Amino acid sequence: MIHIRSIIRILGFLWLILAAFMLIPFAISCFEKADTFYAFFTTILIMLLTGLASIVLTKKKETLKMNTKDGFIFVTFAWISASAFGALPFVISYSIPSYTDAFFETMSGFTTTGASILTEIEGFPHSILFWRSLTHWLGGMGIVVLAVALLPLLGIGGAQLFKAESPGPTLDKIAPSIKDTAKILWKIYLFFTLAETVLLLFGGMNLFDALTHTFGTLATGGFSPKNSSVGAYNSAYIDVVITVFMVLAGFNFGLYYYVLLRKPGKILQNSEARAYISIFVVSTLIVAFSIKPLYGTFLNALRYAGFQNASILTTTGYATADFDKWPTLAKGVLFFLMFIGGCSGSTGGGIKVIRIITLAKQAITEIKYLIFPYGVFKVKINKEPVRKDFILTVTGFFFLYIFILLGVTLVIAGGGHDLLTAFSGALVTVGNIGPGFAKIGPTQNYSFFSPLIKWVLSFAMMAGRLEIYTVLVLFHPRFWRS
Amino acid sequence: MIHIRSIIRILGFLWLILAAFMLIPFAISCFEKADTFYAFFTTILIMLLTGLASIVLTKKKETLKMNTKDGFIFVTFAWISASAFGALPFVISYSIPSYTDAFFETMSGFTTTGASILTEIEGFPHSILFWRSLTHWLGGMGIVVLAVALLPLLGIGGAQLFKAESPGPTLDKIAPSIKDTAKILWKIYLFFTLAETVLLLFGGMNLFDALTHTFGTLATGGFSPKNSSVGAYNSAYIDVVITVFMVLAGFNFGLYYYVLLRKPGKILQNSEARAYISIFVVSTLIVAFSIKPLYGTFLNALRYAGFQNASILTTTGYATADFDKWPTLAKGVLFFLMFIGGCSGSTGGGIKVIRIITLAKQAITEIKYLIFPYGVFKVKINKEPVRKDFILTVTGFFFLYIFILLGVTLVIAGGGHDLLTAFSGALVTVGNIGPGFAKIGPTQNYSFFSPLIKWVLSFAMMAGRLEIYTVLVLFHPRFWRS
Repeated sequence: MIHIRSIIRILGFLWLILAAFMLIPFAISCFEKADTFYAFFTTILIMLLTGLASIVLTKKKETLKMNTKDGFIFVTFAWISASAFGALPFVISYSIPSYTDAFFETMSGFTTTGASILTEIEGFPHSILFWRSLTHWLGGMGIVVLAVALLPLLGIGGAQLFKAESPGPTLDKIAPSIKDTAKILWKIYLFFTLAETVLLLFGGMNLFDALTHTFGTLATGGFSPKNSSVGAYNSAYIDVVITVFMVLAGFNFGLYYYVLLRKPGKILQNSEARAYISIFVVSTLIVAFSIKPLYGTFLNALRYAGFQNASILTTTGYATADFDKWPTLAKGVLFFLMFIGGCSGSTGGGIKVIRIITLAKQAITEIKYLIFPYGVFKVKINKEPVRKDFILTVTGFFFLYIFILLGVTLVIAGGGHDLLTAFSGALVTVGNIGPGFAKIGPTQNYSFFSPLIKWVLSFAMMAGRLEIYTVLVLFHPRFWRS
Repeated sequence: MIHIRSIIRILGFLWLILAAFMLIPFAISCFEKADTFYAFFTTILIMLLTGLASIVLTKKKETLKMNTKDGFIFVTFAWISASAFGALPFVISYSIPSYTDAFFETMSGFTTTGASILTEIEGFPHSILFWRSLTHWLGGMGIVVLAVALLPLLGIGGAQLFKAESPGPTLDKIAPSIKDTAKILWKIYLFFTLAETVLLLFGGMNLFDALTHTFGTLATGGFSPKNSSVGAYNSAYIDVVITVFMVLAGFNFGLYYYVLLRKPGKILQNSEARAYISIFVVSTLIVAFSIKPLYGTFLNALRYAGFQNASILTTTGYATADFDKWPTLAKGVLFFLMFIGGCSGSTGGGIKVIRIITLAKQAITEIKYLIFPYGVFKVKINKEPVRKDFILTVTGFFFLYIFILLGVTLVIAGGGHDLLTAFSGALVTVGNIGPGFAKIGPTQNYSFFSPLIKWVLSFAMMAGRLEIYTVLVLFHPRFWRS
């Protein structure tokens, strides 16, 4: 049983929220000389009318009903419709004349991927660039998580939505109700936004640059209003600030609740957090060692290595150097990190550290069984034994992830692009990273791909962002049968 | 409890068997003008003495004892020692002056990989090239499976060995005892060897070329005594014969027992066999479509596509064309196939079709649970439900496989080689395929790698051939504790 009315009604509310957020770039456009205000005005009007129409037309006396199936449909169409509407200002203002390109850019924003089709970024109006970065911020925390806090007001529990949207296996409930959880996450997110913006202002950035880069950092997105990304500032201070906040954004946000509870030590007892930090430290040391000849001192190499490793591991995608020209060892490490991703419950994408840990522990368990066939071994995470069914879910995810990677590789290769571009392109879109190697290196962009490839990559970004299952389930023939 | 004496004793028998097989290239060397007979004579003498010493020194009144642990040690050291001894003729005859290179080439032979460090192959004496191809034939069927048929004569059951060696999850026992099973497999292998040799002789090959190519085909190895591999003959007949036998070699050999039982229809009821054939047919059609412009007619394109797809899917590695120069779509398909491999119980390497099916079905099962959270769904293979523990074993394998791929990629990239060379190099050594892309394309070879990389790749080939677990288990600290 699918509740189409309810889904459309909640999508309506979502579009109204989006329209409200679009008032900010609209305001900017009114102040700057560019005539983009017309584009934002039109889009806001369209979203307002569509949103209101959806709400009015689906009005009923009974409360709204939503089940798990509805949740999957809602989440997927939330991202699709947000990107479909969000692309309009780009097209109407002629900033990005092709709708395919604009949709790609917006989906890349809302999925916090950061893959861009823009070439000369700095020439665009501030309002357009602000909207582009705002899609990161909105998508990053999850427009849906924000909406989840509102859903109870609409008379819906919404636990099923959270199940569908929450990135990665949920660790444990940090607050008794979804509404409270969403509120806490939202406050942490706001706090980090404020903190990073202030710190970047201290570093000499103007408010616009500080805000847009903060959006890109905390959402682990990667869009920058600068042609040469964060490298444009050439400031060690800014690099360090952004590195720190990228790493923070890659943590499970639920863990920050321990800080609020004044038990920060608990964070280090978390298996995933420890593995995440270990991977970051070890990979940064190897890359720093590899690129030292390029950057003089080890400390300087550490700055660039730390930034780039944090950027790739957390799936942000900012760059302070053209890593595609780094020594092959450093590139190999970044390639390796592209398979990992952030922690569950972070804004990062990728396979996620918790899944990697689970699979690694399962593999070790199998080896133990070979040594002691009659022993009893259990995979433990956070000192708790993990259920076999959980491992099997991770198995399915891991297989689908690799399978989709190879499928997307085939599509890109089918367009006549070399294998490294194709495979790294698949890795960085499905993993929501952004820049890859070869034709899509950090100084390159996605504009040269054919429309077909751009649509497939848009789909890949969405599938990756929504943890694959959420999207693929809609393609199962039995899903739509009542 | 590890039975060192028993392991050494059986290794001794193995070395004697190897020495016996080396009499063939020795005989060839006596007939040809090259003075390689000295190299073979010395090696045979060394193996004979070491073998006899091992057997005599470990002589005891009690029967030999072997447990699972001993099995793992034996299998791993069987491959290491066979390669260590097998490399000697190359070094002593100065055919391959470097021991590192000779070991790499021999390990590549015994693991049926077919990655070669030789550049001008046709200049080598026939005896050397015959030995090189014979390592494929011996390794392919598994020197160990041959030995398994002998082990019962030594008073050992050997079921644990078969467990360790048998490539992939065993389907079902095709004969009541391991000894009988090995005998049947050995007969099927011999029959195919005879059949392909005769068919290649009909195609105009001389006996030497027919035999060496047959060895490379049935072992899914890929060493050819020709510089341009099978492409040297430029014969549609030979291409088709080898394509057919590559495909046959990629099937589970246990299934041929159904033919002996006059129930060949049962083969097509086998899930793995059907998936294997489907993958081969679909991928061949796509590649043929992609390369048609290069080969004029679709039929001609089909000939080259079929050959190359069979070669990569079965992990043989023969080439009739420089596929590294094919359109990117065709290369993408071959890249995809490099992740699959042959069927379990075949001589092929890779992840294996049965594991891919298991993982794919598990992923689909997870999607079903999202639609019907209270349903009960089971992964079925050959219409039988599969135990969760089996899927978890496959999970561990799949993760380790991808992990080792990325690890080997890092090592090659660390040597200053581009990412495509590094990643495809990892894929084709761990998967026992042979040729990859870029610097290690089908017209290239492995000679330029540093000794460190060659040793790591030798290890990778062995780990891949012995189904990873068999080798990795030896690295677990608890393995060596009593």
